[in-house]
Amino acid sequence: MKLLKEKILSEGRVKPHNILKVDSFLNHQIDVELMNEIGKEFKTRFNDKEVNKILTIEASGIAVASITAQYFDNSKVVFGKKTESLNLDDDIYKTEIHSFTKNKNYNVMVSKRFINNGDKVLILDDFLANGCAALGLIDIVKQAKAEVVGVGIVIEKGFQPGRAEIEKFGIKVESLAIIDKMDDNKVWFK
Amino acid sequence: MKLLKEKILSEGRVKPHNILKVDSFLNHQIDVELMNEIGKEFKTRFNDKEVNKILTIEASGIAVASITAQYFDNSKVVFGKKTESLNLDDDIYKTEIHSFTKNKNYNVMVSKRFINNGDKVLILDDFLANGCAALGLIDIVKQAKAEVVGVGIVIEKGFQPGRAEIEKFGIKVESLAIIDKMDDNKVWFK
Repeated sequence: MKLLKEKILSEGRVKPHNILKVDSFLNHQIDVELMNEIGKEFKTRFNDKEVNKILTIEASGIAVASITAQYFDNSKVVFGKKTESLNLDDDIYKTEIHSFTKNKNYNVMVSKRFINNGDKVLILDDFLANGCAALGLIDIVKQAKAEVVGVGIVIEKGFQPGRAEIEKFGIKVESLAIIDKMDDNKVWFK
Repeated sequence: MKLLKEKILSEGRVKPHNILKVDSFLNHQIDVELMNEIGKEFKTRFNDKEVNKILTIEASGIAVASITAQYFDNSKVVFGKKTESLNLDDDIYKTEIHSFTKNKNYNVMVSKRFINNGDKVLILDDFLANGCAALGLIDIVKQAKAEVVGVGIVIEKGFQPGRAEIEKFGIKVESLAIIDKMDDNKVWFK
């Protein structure tokens, strides 16, 4: 996706530990116009799929999922929660995920009321690297006996193993920008 | 806002400690069509204001802010972060907030790059009760020497002091549904 790649090149900042900061448009400040173009692109990539739920994880997946859902008629967004709260049901699907950027394990929880047998679930997230978050969400969909129709990613670190891990389940992965290599202050796309 | 009140009456669930669960459409599963109606309504309520930034707090404010921003031309969304991360800048505005639903204090952080002197900031959130989150966001905008043009809330607990605390600063508060009273399994609106 040309517009996204241009945005990464103009505003992305490469930091140590293979961190690509895109917080000016994707996951702290949000460029809603760009997000709409991202939503349209996901619709094009998954146009052959029936989707009634878009599942993501708090916090940075929520904007992508909410804007994208507007292009999938009659779909609802569900986001996995990372913290216990009085707002969360007792009856939940739970899975443990490791975050490399935060360097810790945490549980992701989804109320059993919102993913059901028969649901056609598109999983969306802002980044794919080792695949931990996406694999956790896939696990939750499987616990609910629903179907993952695909995984859509805004930015994939193509030099990390996330895609291969997801494709092992026979699940289609579509990433709008795939980074081949990062070095000092430069990014190369595949 | 009639549609929102109907949704609260049909799907909301009252729990002990004055918790109103609206997780089927607002803050766990998201009804994107309703969210668009909410966005249009915020535009109507703040139509007289110039807005270039919409500031909210992760996680449940993000969907409201992102969808609503589509109705405010050329506005960007910024969401306050609750956890330290390699993704966050060192140079941040920080404020401490108490969460009654989670029963703890936490810091909310916004990179100094994304709120600037001269910005016209509309603060949006899903709930207003004691006002802690909104007051924290107001504090961040003040640290940045930017202007709060208003606070927009999806559901206000009108029997709690949040609105009065915000109005002390001379800031306009617009809530799309104001709950007058909650009791067992019932909700009364103002």
